[in-house]
Amino acid sequence: MSITKGEIRSGAYYDSVILMQLQRSLTELPGVIDAGVIMGTDANKDLLAQSDLLAPEIKAAGVDDMVIVIKADDETAAQAALEGVDDLLAARRSGGIEEDYRPKSLESAAQMIPDAQWVLVSVPGRYAAGVARSALDLDKHVFLYSDNITLMDEIELKHTAAGKGLIVMGPDCGTAIVNGVGLGFANKVRRGSIGLVAGSGTGLQQVTSRIHQFGGGITQALGTGGRDLTEQVGAVTARQGLDLLSRDPQTQVIVLVSKPPSKSVADELVQTARQIGKPVVVDFIGYSTALRKVDNVYFATSFDETAELAVKLSSKGAAVEPDEQFNLDLFSPDQRYLRGLFSGGTLAYEALLVLENYLPAVYSNAPLDKKYRLADSLVSQEPTILDLGEAEFTVGRLHPMLDNDLRLRRLEMEASDPAVAVILLGVVLGFGAHPDPASELAPAIISARTGAEKSGRYLEVVAIVTGTDEDPQDMHAQIEQLEAAGARVFTSNDAAASFVGRLAQALDPAAARTSQNNLAEVDLQALNQPMAAINVGLETFTESLADQGAQVVQVEWRPPASGDEKLMAILERMKSK
Amino acid sequence: MSITKGEIRSGAYYDSVILMQLQRSLTELPGVIDAGVIMGTDANKDLLAQSDLLAPEIKAAGVDDMVIVIKADDETAAQAALEGVDDLLAARRSGGIEEDYRPKSLESAAQMIPDAQWVLVSVPGRYAAGVARSALDLDKHVFLYSDNITLMDEIELKHTAAGKGLIVMGPDCGTAIVNGVGLGFANKVRRGSIGLVAGSGTGLQQVTSRIHQFGGGITQALGTGGRDLTEQVGAVTARQGLDLLSRDPQTQVIVLVSKPPSKSVADELVQTARQIGKPVVVDFIGYSTALRKVDNVYFATSFDETAELAVKLSSKGAAVEPDEQFNLDLFSPDQRYLRGLFSGGTLAYEALLVLENYLPAVYSNAPLDKKYRLADSLVSQEPTILDLGEAEFTVGRLHPMLDNDLRLRRLEMEASDPAVAVILLGVVLGFGAHPDPASELAPAIISARTGAEKSGRYLEVVAIVTGTDEDPQDMHAQIEQLEAAGARVFTSNDAAASFVGRLAQALDPAAARTSQNNLAEVDLQALNQPMAAINVGLETFTESLADQGAQVVQVEWRPPASGDEKLMAILERMKSK
Repeated sequence: MSITKGEIRSGAYYDSVILMQLQRSLTELPGVIDAGVIMGTDANKDLLAQSDLLAPEIKAAGVDDMVIVIKADDETAAQAALEGVDDLLAARRSGGIEEDYRPKSLESAAQMIPDAQWVLVSVPGRYAAGVARSALDLDKHVFLYSDNITLMDEIELKHTAAGKGLIVMGPDCGTAIVNGVGLGFANKVRRGSIGLVAGSGTGLQQVTSRIHQFGGGITQALGTGGRDLTEQVGAVTARQGLDLLSRDPQTQVIVLVSKPPSKSVADELVQTARQIGKPVVVDFIGYSTALRKVDNVYFATSFDETAELAVKLSSKGAAVEPDEQFNLDLFSPDQRYLRGLFSGGTLAYEALLVLENYLPAVYSNAPLDKKYRLADSLVSQEPTILDLGEAEFTVGRLHPMLDNDLRLRRLEMEASDPAVAVILLGVVLGFGAHPDPASELAPAIISARTGAEKSGRYLEVVAIVTGTDEDPQDMHAQIEQLEAAGARVFTSNDAAASFVGRLAQALDPAAARTSQNNLAEVDLQALNQPMAAINVGLETFTESLADQGAQVVQVEWRPPASGDEKLMAILERMKSK
Repeated sequence: MSITKGEIRSGAYYDSVILMQLQRSLTELPGVIDAGVIMGTDANKDLLAQSDLLAPEIKAAGVDDMVIVIKADDETAAQAALEGVDDLLAARRSGGIEEDYRPKSLESAAQMIPDAQWVLVSVPGRYAAGVARSALDLDKHVFLYSDNITLMDEIELKHTAAGKGLIVMGPDCGTAIVNGVGLGFANKVRRGSIGLVAGSGTGLQQVTSRIHQFGGGITQALGTGGRDLTEQVGAVTARQGLDLLSRDPQTQVIVLVSKPPSKSVADELVQTARQIGKPVVVDFIGYSTALRKVDNVYFATSFDETAELAVKLSSKGAAVEPDEQFNLDLFSPDQRYLRGLFSGGTLAYEALLVLENYLPAVYSNAPLDKKYRLADSLVSQEPTILDLGEAEFTVGRLHPMLDNDLRLRRLEMEASDPAVAVILLGVVLGFGAHPDPASELAPAIISARTGAEKSGRYLEVVAIVTGTDEDPQDMHAQIEQLEAAGARVFTSNDAAASFVGRLAQALDPAAARTSQNNLAEVDLQALNQPMAAINVGLETFTESLADQGAQVVQVEWRPPASGDEKLMAILERMKSK
């Protein structure tokens, strides 16, 4: 037999560490089988019911009420436990940090540590936005651990912060590592050259831990809260974080992690990342990309892979491919289009896939997306990739791998178009193919380039040679002939398509998808000064900061107006006057 | 001034190599500026027009008519050229292979080379299905280079072949390498341990060439034709190819390449690939996956990456992770479900993403797909992954990283469910987190496992520990405690989720997505005997095979009934009687 007794303490605020400690102490009392100490939300009452702790007298408790339930062997033990609550709370209090020296407000805390750049907020959600707002008023960056904050509040806080060059990590930001000091929950990770921005708490912890395990280290790890990459929030914090890390000289590799993001917000963030001269590893859960890598941006699909890749990239140093310095002055102002002549479908497809990352629209007789189908295969429009192996070019005539005739005629035609700047040629060697394609292509390339030059234009010709050194055509001799004719030769289709994509994009900047960052710049000092912080909420965070050698003060916070929402609203209105 | 003159030769069939050679010879005649020799399709006439070669007298030409056009300085030169056509054709003929010894039919060719297992078909599309059908009647495998074959013919041919244990590569199959011999267009690639199946001609050439360039080599490279992975064809050839390579002892790594495939057909093929005990690298253009690797299957997004990965895997030998031998007898027959208890959202998300590959439905309070949302977070259903960091568990109580109470209670509850076989626990260390989670979890794990054992069940407990050796909790000591309690510990979330996914799938085979291969097995001899082939169509393919040392005979093919479609239909009907 057992008996369950409960008690409601209306409007009694304790932070949840204290609730937990009280619950434990109660459980250890003689005759007590189980105990529950929680704030009286419906969810918590359901959990009590599941543990068979929902005493009838506590069903009426509300969200601002502390609820204490004891399951004991008998009435006497239960009653004794309930009566011991005040003593236990008092005992805990006297054993804690000297509370007399604790400031009662953010303002006085800020006076105590004028160097504090950060405010950590972990009070219950419905009070947290107010505290964060006060912190921003004091020009502090905010680490907002609290969850259960409205989306409207999040948006408003982040925009207020961004307007002032401040950053709000969160809400529901469980973790960050700023200048070597963990905020909230954080692992002890070696310092190094990898910087993180994460819309995911355990994701950030997993990736930073694995980076450490793989022998790498980090500069900064910034949290954004799990909703930052939604349409509504628009990645304000992630964009600030990315900008900070791009400017941070210690950060050589950047990692972006998020819970399932909005596709368009994620796309936009990737565009921004591409404008940074550092490798960026992206792992947005469930965000799939058709390519693994675009320029400096690598896409990973697991935290493990993310960590491994980041460590690999960081150990190479900042090894982004050198930004080609295209000499755009060579081209006449009208020249901007790319024309590609392939003799096989899949190489053309792969090129189209790569080009999607550089040009808004590429036409083709075999497009990836039907809306870019050429009206007439015989006439190119804007940037065009042509598969000369398609039926309209091969029925009743020889395949272009065997017969260059069609390609030579088309090359001449494209080269004479004053809007064309780049010609891409797929050259496939091997058994069955033309015995010496370069002998026919090289003169045509020379003639095309000379013709353009005579008309005051410059023609970039890029050839992709598919073959081996054992092929009957002698691949190296083929390459030499093409290069002697002025072509730039690649053996990787991928690399060739990326190259012409970057060039075509540079020639037609209107085609480039650019992203604007209209946020005020956050000072790098936010990350690079010794950590000094004000903590409002969970005391364990203060202890943890102190353990890590940071300067920290705990605010002795109580719900305003004892949690009375009407009164809170009046106070808020008075304050803003 | 120039003059253009043309001539139609009705019903005159020449293969397109001859057309090209004739065109070249004509261009070289005195006074000739340009020439065109083609079959009279509309597309070809458009191309003539574009080169200013569409003489009025040839506009009436049809698809079975050879068209000859000359652009010359004057009437005399043009006329002389046209009159020279017969001599040029005759000269070419006498210079070629002794045609007297050429068989006039497939049947007599088959008698000449009884060992021939392969028939290469490159006659015009509208005749090609008939030739392929005859080859299948003779129990030959078919390399079907011709394009412009109807989808219905393709389906019918492939099913006929598959029913007889024969394979049809194509239609529109440009390339293959069988037992070291290139069919159609193919590069000379080092022999090695990588086998390919490709629904893409230039893709196959690019990947095999890059494999060679990266120092690797191939066993076989089988083409399927570009439509094989469509819904209608259902990857008949790709499935046969995959099955052949899975049985081929020389092949240690398999590569699958395709033009943009049907998503469902590609998914199915990937499922099949997962049942093969060899690493498989998949690059289906535009087929994006949320994960980079599932068991033995690696997803690449470019031909370069595909080749690089295949070479890397092949140099390791067949280094698939050993198939765990789960001792399923330990479990009671009712045990089959997985229950995961995470203290953070993103690790839970990643686990869900991985589990999608093993289990048809995993429920969660934070699911990737809303339809798998738990009706009640307090009650698990079937396989369930729970994020205890979600608001319903954290408002007004401490976060599960700090307070194990909720998790311990839930662990006990899940462990007592007779349908539960595996429990997955996310344990996050670090600053701010519980100072010694293992001290509370380990006893609970022991109790859960002992309780299950008493009821005749076996409980697999898997823990993912996120942390570093510098964390305040001492990660190694935490891991030891958990292991001592009987938990299997991972530090990679990815690896842990894959492990429990495989186990849960093994326990509930009904949940596993299996794929049936209802095709008759193709004898490995098709790939492993010295190449002997019959070529019907482009003579250059015969030359190329002979150059590569293969046994080959060219059939002296002419369109049946001189291309008269009515007559052809009658002949076809007579034949089938």
